[in-house]
Amino acid sequence: MKYPGKANGEYKAIINYSNRGMTLEEDINITNEYYRNIDKAIIYKKPTPITISKVEYNGNKERVIKEAYFKIPSTTDYNGIYKGKYIDFEAKETKLKYFPLINIHKHQIEHLKRVSKHGAIAFLIVRFTTLNETYYLDIKDLTYYLDNIKKSFVSHDFFKEKGFLLKEKYNPRIDYLSTIDDIYFKGDFYEKEK
Amino acid sequence: MKYPGKANGEYKAIINYSNRGMTLEEDINITNEYYRNIDKAIIYKKPTPITISKVEYNGNKERVIKEAYFKIPSTTDYNGIYKGKYIDFEAKETKLKYFPLINIHKHQIEHLKRVSKHGAIAFLIVRFTTLNETYYLDIKDLTYYLDNIKKSFVSHDFFKEKGFLLKEKYNPRIDYLSTIDDIYFKGDFYEKEK
Repeated sequence: MKYPGKANGEYKAIINYSNRGMTLEEDINITNEYYRNIDKAIIYKKPTPITISKVEYNGNKERVIKEAYFKIPSTTDYNGIYKGKYIDFEAKETKLKYFPLINIHKHQIEHLKRVSKHGAIAFLIVRFTTLNETYYLDIKDLTYYLDNIKKSFVSHDFFKEKGFLLKEKYNPRIDYLSTIDDIYFKGDFYEKEK
Repeated sequence: MKYPGKANGEYKAIINYSNRGMTLEEDINITNEYYRNIDKAIIYKKPTPITISKVEYNGNKERVIKEAYFKIPSTTDYNGIYKGKYIDFEAKETKLKYFPLINIHKHQIEHLKRVSKHGAIAFLIVRFTTLNETYYLDIKDLTYYLDNIKKSFVSHDFFKEKGFLLKEKYNPRIDYLSTIDDIYFKGDFYEKEK
Protein backbone atom coordinates (compact mmCIF):
# COMPACT_ATOMS: atom_id res chain seq x y z
CA MET A 1 0.00 0.00 0.00
CA LYS A 2 1.27 3.41 -0.90
CA TYR A 3 0.08 6.53 0.82
CA PRO A 4 1.39 10.08 1.15
CA GLY A 5 3.73 10.83 4.01
CA LYS A 6 4.91 7.22 4.10
CA ALA A 7 6.83 6.53 7.30
CA ASN A 8 10.56 6.94 6.89
CA GLY A 9 10.24 7.48 3.16
CA GLU A 10 13.15 9.87 3.11
CA TYR A 11 15.40 7.66 5.19
CA LYS A 12 14.72 4.62 3.04
CA ALA A 13 15.46 6.66 -0.04
CA ILE A 14 18.85 7.52 1.39
CA ILE A 15 19.92 4.02 2.25
CA ASN A 16 18.77 2.71 -1.15
CA TYR A 17 20.80 5.52 -2.61
CA SER A 18 22.33 3.73 -5.60
CA ASN A 19 19.27 1.67 -6.50
CA ARG A 20 17.24 2.14 -9.60
CA GLY A 21 13.50 2.06 -9.54
CA MET A 22 13.03 4.81 -6.99
CA THR A 23 9.90 6.89 -7.08
CA LEU A 24 10.03 10.44 -8.35
CA GLU A 25 9.41 11.64 -4.79
CA GLU A 26 12.41 9.72 -3.52
CA ASP A 27 14.60 11.02 -6.35
CA ILE A 28 13.57 14.60 -5.62
CA ASN A 29 14.09 14.22 -1.87
CA ILE A 30 17.63 12.95 -2.48
CA THR A 31 18.26 15.70 -5.00
CA ASN A 32 17.08 18.38 -2.56
CA GLU A 33 19.21 16.89 0.19
CA TYR A 34 22.20 17.00 -2.15
CA TYR A 35 21.49 20.65 -2.97
CA ARG A 36 21.26 21.48 0.74
CA ASN A 37 24.47 19.61 1.53
CA ILE A 38 26.45 21.58 -1.03
CA ASP A 39 24.56 24.74 0.03
CA LYS A 40 23.29 25.33 -3.51
CA ALA A 41 19.62 25.74 -2.59
CA ILE A 42 17.41 25.28 0.45
CA ILE A 43 14.38 23.38 -0.79
CA TYR A 44 12.23 21.00 1.26
CA LYS A 45 9.19 18.82 0.79
CA LYS A 46 6.33 19.97 2.97
CA PRO A 47 4.79 17.51 5.41
CA THR A 48 1.60 15.75 4.33
CA PRO A 49 -1.37 17.84 5.42
CA ILE A 50 -3.64 16.03 7.85
CA THR A 51 -6.48 16.81 10.21
CA ILE A 52 -5.86 15.31 13.62
CA SER A 53 -8.92 14.21 15.54
CA LYS A 54 -7.54 12.07 18.38
CA VAL A 55 -4.29 12.23 20.34
CA GLU A 56 -3.39 10.04 23.28
CA TYR A 57 -0.39 9.58 25.51
CA ASN A 58 1.35 6.22 25.36
CA GLY A 59 3.27 4.41 28.14
CA ASN A 60 6.33 6.60 27.52
CA LYS A 61 4.23 9.73 27.96
CA GLU A 62 4.71 10.40 24.27
CA ARG A 63 1.86 11.92 22.33
CA VAL A 64 0.51 9.48 19.75
CA ILE A 65 -1.95 10.43 17.04
CA LYS A 66 -4.72 7.82 17.16
CA GLU A 67 -6.99 9.23 14.50
CA ALA A 68 -6.23 11.59 11.66
CA TYR A 69 -7.36 12.15 8.09
CA PHE A 70 -5.52 13.14 4.94
CA LYS A 71 -6.45 16.62 3.77
CA ILE A 72 -6.44 17.96 0.23
CA PRO A 73 -3.31 20.13 0.11
CA SER A 74 -3.80 23.90 -0.36
CA THR A 75 -0.38 24.32 -1.89
CA THR A 76 2.30 22.27 -3.60
CA ASP A 77 4.68 19.73 -2.09
CA TYR A 78 7.99 21.54 -2.55
CA ASN A 79 9.23 25.03 -1.93
CA GLY A 80 12.34 26.92 -0.93
CA ILE A 81 14.98 29.34 -2.15
CA TYR A 82 17.58 29.26 -4.94
CA LYS A 83 19.82 32.18 -5.94
CA GLY A 84 17.57 34.48 -3.94
CA LYS A 85 14.44 33.38 -5.81
CA TYR A 86 11.43 31.68 -4.31
CA ILE A 87 11.02 28.20 -5.82
CA ASP A 88 7.70 26.34 -5.80
CA PHE A 89 6.77 23.11 -7.54
CA GLU A 90 4.73 19.95 -7.60
CA ALA A 91 5.99 16.54 -8.77
CA LYS A 92 3.79 13.88 -10.36
CA GLU A 93 4.22 10.51 -11.96
CA THR A 94 2.04 8.93 -14.62
CA LYS A 95 2.08 5.52 -16.23
CA LEU A 96 0.17 6.90 -19.21
CA LYS A 97 1.64 8.47 -22.33
CA TYR A 98 0.00 11.79 -21.51
CA PHE A 99 -0.45 13.70 -18.26
CA PRO A 100 -4.06 13.63 -17.00
CA LEU A 101 -4.96 16.90 -15.29
CA ILE A 102 -6.92 14.94 -12.72
CA ASN A 103 -3.51 13.99 -11.31
CA ILE A 104 -3.04 17.49 -9.94
CA HIS A 105 -5.47 19.45 -7.78
CA LYS A 106 -6.91 22.53 -9.46
CA HIS A 107 -5.93 24.79 -6.55
CA GLN A 108 -2.36 23.52 -6.80
CA ILE A 109 -2.24 24.88 -10.36
CA GLU A 110 -3.86 28.09 -9.10
CA HIS A 111 -1.24 28.28 -6.35
CA LEU A 112 1.60 27.91 -8.89
CA LYS A 113 0.08 30.66 -11.05
CA ARG A 114 -0.26 32.98 -8.06
CA VAL A 115 3.28 32.58 -6.76
CA SER A 116 4.59 32.94 -10.31
CA LYS A 117 2.74 36.26 -10.56
CA HIS A 118 4.51 37.30 -7.34
CA GLY A 119 7.92 36.53 -8.83
CA ALA A 120 8.45 32.87 -8.00
CA ILE A 121 10.00 30.24 -10.22
CA ALA A 122 7.05 27.83 -10.37
CA PHE A 123 6.75 24.59 -12.28
CA LEU A 124 5.80 20.93 -12.45
CA ILE A 125 8.12 17.96 -12.59
CA VAL A 126 6.32 15.15 -14.40
CA ARG A 127 7.68 11.65 -14.87
CA PHE A 128 6.29 9.38 -17.57
CA THR A 129 7.24 6.11 -15.90
CA THR A 130 6.64 3.85 -18.89
CA LEU A 131 8.67 6.12 -21.19
CA ASN A 132 11.30 6.64 -18.48
CA GLU A 133 11.27 10.40 -19.08
CA THR A 134 11.06 13.19 -16.52
CA TYR A 135 10.20 16.73 -17.58
CA TYR A 136 10.34 20.23 -16.13
CA LEU A 137 7.27 22.19 -17.24
CA ASP A 138 7.12 25.86 -16.31
CA ILE A 139 3.79 27.10 -14.98
CA LYS A 140 3.77 29.79 -17.69
CA ASP A 141 3.76 27.11 -20.37
CA LEU A 142 1.18 25.01 -18.52
CA THR A 143 -1.03 28.09 -18.20
CA TYR A 144 -0.75 28.68 -21.94
CA TYR A 145 -1.77 25.07 -22.58
CA LEU A 146 -4.73 25.22 -20.21
CA ASP A 147 -5.96 28.52 -21.62
CA ASN A 148 -5.67 27.50 -25.25
CA ILE A 149 -5.96 23.75 -25.53
CA LYS A 150 -9.09 22.68 -23.75
CA LYS A 151 -8.28 19.11 -22.93
CA SER A 152 -8.37 17.05 -19.75
CA PHE A 153 -4.73 16.10 -20.17
CA VAL A 154 -1.41 17.57 -21.27
CA SER A 155 0.00 15.69 -24.25
CA HIS A 156 3.44 14.14 -24.22
CA ASP A 157 4.20 16.19 -27.34
CA PHE A 158 3.60 19.38 -25.38
CA PHE A 159 6.14 18.28 -22.78
CA LYS A 160 8.60 17.53 -25.59
CA GLU A 161 7.96 20.90 -27.18
CA LYS A 162 7.71 23.27 -24.21
CA GLY A 163 9.10 21.25 -21.32
CA PHE A 164 12.70 20.40 -20.54
CA LEU A 165 13.79 16.79 -20.33
CA LEU A 166 15.59 16.27 -17.01
CA LYS A 167 18.54 13.92 -17.28
CA GLU A 168 18.84 11.41 -14.48
CA LYS A 169 22.26 11.09 -13.00
CA TYR A 170 23.85 9.48 -10.01
CA ASN A 171 24.12 12.72 -8.06
CA PRO A 172 22.15 14.92 -8.13
CA ARG A 173 19.55 12.40 -9.28
CA ILE A 174 17.41 14.96 -11.13
CA ASP A 175 19.32 18.18 -11.62
CA TYR A 176 16.35 20.47 -12.12
CA LEU A 177 18.29 23.51 -10.91
CA SER A 178 20.57 23.36 -13.94
CA THR A 179 17.42 23.58 -16.08
CA ILE A 180 16.31 26.57 -14.00
CA ASP A 181 19.75 28.10 -14.61
CA ASP A 182 19.23 27.71 -18.35
CA ILE A 183 15.75 29.19 -18.25
CA TYR A 184 16.02 31.91 -15.64
CA PHE A 185 19.63 32.78 -14.99
CA LYS A 186 21.21 33.30 -18.34
CA GLY A 187 20.71 34.78 -21.76
CA ASP A 188 17.65 36.39 -23.24
CA PHE A 189 14.98 34.77 -21.12
CA TYR A 190 16.36 36.12 -17.85
CA GLU A 191 16.84 39.57 -19.38
CA LYS A 192 13.24 39.50 -20.51
CA GLU A 193 12.05 38.39 -17.11
CA LYS A 194 13.88 41.04 -15.11
CA MET B 1 -5.10 19.86 25.65
CA LYS B 2 -3.15 21.76 23.05
CA TYR B 3 -1.11 20.08 20.38
CA PRO B 4 0.32 21.17 17.05
CA GLY B 5 -1.83 20.68 13.99
CA LYS B 6 -4.97 20.95 16.06
CA ALA B 7 -7.99 19.81 14.07
CA ASN B 8 -9.74 22.68 12.30
CA GLY B 9 -7.56 25.24 14.05
CA GLU B 10 -7.68 27.55 11.06
CA TYR B 11 -11.40 27.27 10.60
CA LYS B 12 -12.12 27.97 14.27
CA ALA B 13 -9.84 30.97 14.08
CA ILE B 14 -11.91 32.32 11.24
CA ILE B 15 -15.27 31.97 12.90
CA ASN B 16 -13.95 33.51 16.12
CA TYR B 17 -12.67 36.29 13.95
CA SER B 18 -13.45 39.28 16.16
CA ASN B 19 -12.62 37.63 19.45
CA ARG B 20 -9.70 38.60 21.63
CA GLY B 21 -7.53 36.02 23.30
CA MET B 22 -6.52 34.18 20.16
CA THR B 23 -3.23 32.39 20.04
CA LEU B 24 -0.36 33.83 18.06
CA GLU B 25 -0.74 30.97 15.59
CA GLU B 26 -4.40 31.83 15.02
CA ASP B 27 -3.58 35.52 14.60
CA ILE B 28 -0.89 34.72 12.04
CA ASN B 29 -3.09 32.30 10.13
CA ILE B 30 -5.79 34.97 9.84
CA THR B 31 -3.21 37.57 8.86
CA ASN B 32 -1.79 35.33 6.13
CA GLU B 33 -5.25 34.56 4.86
CA TYR B 34 -5.95 38.29 4.69
CA TYR B 35 -2.71 38.87 2.77
CA ARG B 36 -3.64 36.11 0.32
CA ASN B 37 -7.16 37.45 -0.11
CA ILE B 38 -5.91 40.90 -1.09
CA ASP B 39 -3.12 39.25 -3.13
CA LYS B 40 -0.41 41.04 -1.16
CA ALA B 41 1.66 37.96 -0.33
CA ILE B 42 1.34 34.18 -0.64
CA ILE B 43 2.41 32.82 2.74
CA TYR B 44 1.21 29.59 4.33
CA LYS B 45 1.76 27.63 7.50
CA LYS B 46 3.29 24.26 6.76
CA PRO B 47 1.48 21.15 7.96
CA THR B 48 2.68 19.59 11.21
CA PRO B 49 5.37 17.04 10.41
CA ILE B 50 4.42 13.53 11.46
CA THR B 51 5.61 9.99 10.92
CA ILE B 52 2.72 7.76 9.96
CA SER B 53 2.94 4.16 11.11
CA LYS B 54 -0.56 2.77 10.60
CA VAL B 55 -3.25 3.54 8.05
CA GLU B 56 -6.57 1.74 7.70
CA TYR B 57 -9.66 2.10 5.57
CA ASN B 58 -12.89 2.99 7.34
CA GLY B 59 -16.45 2.06 6.40
CA ASN B 60 -16.55 4.81 3.76
CA LYS B 61 -13.37 3.43 2.13
CA GLU B 62 -11.60 6.53 3.36
CA ARG B 63 -8.01 6.19 4.52
CA VAL B 64 -7.69 6.89 8.23
CA ILE B 65 -4.39 7.31 10.04
CA LYS B 66 -4.57 5.08 13.10
CA GLU B 67 -1.08 5.63 14.46
CA ALA B 68 1.32 8.49 13.87
CA TYR B 69 3.93 10.42 15.83
CA PHE B 70 4.89 14.07 15.93
CA LYS B 71 8.31 14.70 14.40
CA ILE B 72 10.76 17.44 15.25
CA PRO B 73 10.39 19.90 12.38
CA SER B 74 13.42 20.36 10.07
CA THR B 75 12.34 23.82 9.06
CA THR B 76 10.11 26.62 10.29
CA ASP B 77 6.34 26.81 10.32
CA TYR B 78 5.77 29.59 7.79
CA ASN B 79 7.09 30.40 4.37
CA GLY B 80 6.08 32.01 1.11
CA ILE B 81 6.65 34.95 -1.19
CA TYR B 82 6.27 38.72 -0.79
CA LYS B 83 7.33 41.32 -3.36
CA GLY B 84 9.36 38.65 -5.12
CA LYS B 85 11.29 37.77 -1.96
CA TYR B 86 11.30 34.42 -0.20
CA ILE B 87 9.86 34.82 3.32
CA ASP B 88 10.58 32.35 6.12
CA PHE B 89 9.73 32.60 9.80
CA GLU B 90 8.85 30.89 13.02
CA ALA B 91 6.33 32.15 15.59
CA LYS B 92 6.55 31.52 19.33
CA GLU B 93 4.73 32.57 22.44
CA THR B 94 6.14 32.83 25.94
CA LYS B 95 4.53 33.61 29.28
CA LEU B 96 7.91 34.67 30.66
CA LYS B 97 9.45 38.13 30.52
CA TYR B 98 12.29 36.85 28.37
CA PHE B 99 12.43 34.41 25.46
CA PRO B 100 14.01 31.06 26.43
CA LEU B 101 15.99 29.61 23.52
CA ILE B 102 14.71 26.18 24.45
CA ASN B 103 11.40 27.34 22.93
CA ILE B 104 12.86 27.07 19.45
CA HIS B 105 14.70 24.11 17.93
CA LYS B 106 18.37 24.74 17.20
CA HIS B 107 18.04 23.56 13.60
CA GLN B 108 15.15 25.97 13.09
CA ILE B 109 17.54 28.82 13.91
CA GLU B 110 20.12 27.21 11.61
CA HIS B 111 17.47 27.00 8.89
CA LEU B 112 16.63 30.71 9.26
CA LYS B 113 20.34 31.60 9.05
CA ARG B 114 20.80 29.47 5.94
CA VAL B 115 17.85 30.85 4.00
CA SER B 116 18.86 34.37 5.03
CA LYS B 117 22.31 33.72 3.53
CA HIS B 118 20.54 32.68 0.32
CA GLY B 119 18.63 35.96 0.17
CA ALA B 120 15.50 35.27 2.19
CA ILE B 121 13.77 37.59 4.59
CA ALA B 122 13.98 35.42 7.71
CA PHE B 123 12.82 36.23 11.22
CA LEU B 124 10.99 35.26 14.38
CA ILE B 125 7.68 36.55 15.62
CA VAL B 126 7.65 36.32 19.42
CA ARG B 127 4.70 37.14 21.63
CA PHE B 128 5.19 37.91 25.32
CA THR B 129 1.71 36.93 26.41
CA THR B 130 1.83 38.42 29.91
CA LEU B 131 3.16 41.74 28.55
CA ASN B 132 0.75 41.60 25.62
CA GLU B 133 3.57 42.49 23.20
CA THR B 134 4.44 40.83 19.90
CA TYR B 135 7.80 41.45 18.24
CA TYR B 136 9.42 40.92 14.86
CA LEU B 137 13.07 39.91 15.35
CA ASP B 138 15.23 39.59 12.24
CA ILE B 139 17.45 36.51 12.09
CA LYS B 140 20.45 38.81 11.56
CA ASP B 141 19.84 40.41 14.93
CA LEU B 142 19.17 37.09 16.62
CA THR B 143 22.42 35.75 15.17
CA TYR B 144 24.29 38.74 16.58
CA TYR B 145 22.75 38.09 19.99
CA LEU B 146 23.57 34.38 19.93
CA ASP B 147 27.15 34.99 18.80
CA ASN B 148 27.89 37.70 21.34
CA ILE B 149 25.66 37.25 24.35
CA LYS B 150 26.04 33.70 25.54
CA LYS B 151 22.78 33.21 27.38
CA SER B 152 20.07 30.57 27.25
CA PHE B 153 17.45 33.23 26.58
CA VAL B 154 16.92 36.43 24.65
CA SER B 155 16.12 39.32 26.96
CA HIS B 156 13.03 41.43 26.57
CA ASP B 157 15.30 44.47 26.38
CA PHE B 158 16.95 43.04 23.29
CA PHE B 159 13.55 42.72 21.62
CA LYS B 160 12.81 46.32 22.57
CA GLU B 161 16.16 47.47 21.21
CA LYS B 162 16.60 45.43 18.02
CA GLY B 163 13.15 43.99 17.39
CA PHE B 164 10.07 45.73 16.03
CA LEU B 165 6.90 45.86 18.08
CA LEU B 166 4.02 44.60 15.93
CA LYS B 167 0.80 46.50 16.48
CA GLU B 168 -2.29 44.35 16.73
CA LYS B 169 -5.20 45.53 14.68
CA TYR B 170 -8.54 44.23 13.59
CA ASN B 171 -7.39 43.39 10.09
CA PRO B 172 -4.70 42.37 9.39
CA ARG B 173 -4.33 41.14 12.96
CA ILE B 174 -0.53 41.38 12.99
CA ASP B 175 0.70 43.41 10.07
CA TYR B 176 4.24 42.05 9.95
CA LEU B 177 4.59 42.87 6.25
CA SER B 178 4.46 46.59 6.97
CA THR B 179 7.42 46.05 9.30
CA ILE B 180 9.19 44.16 6.49
CA ASP B 181 8.43 47.10 4.20
CA ASP B 182 10.12 49.43 6.69
CA ILE B 183 13.16 47.20 7.06
CA TYR B 184 13.67 45.80 3.58
CA PHE B 185 11.81 47.87 1.05
CA LYS B 186 12.69 51.44 1.72
CA GLY B 187 15.52 53.72 2.63
CA ASP B 188 19.09 52.91 3.56
CA PHE B 189 18.65 49.37 4.79
CA TYR B 190 17.27 48.11 1.50
CA GLU B 191 19.96 49.91 -0.47
CA LYS B 192 22.59 48.30 1.73
CA GLU B 193 21.00 44.87 1.27
CA LYS B 194 20.79 44.97 -2.52
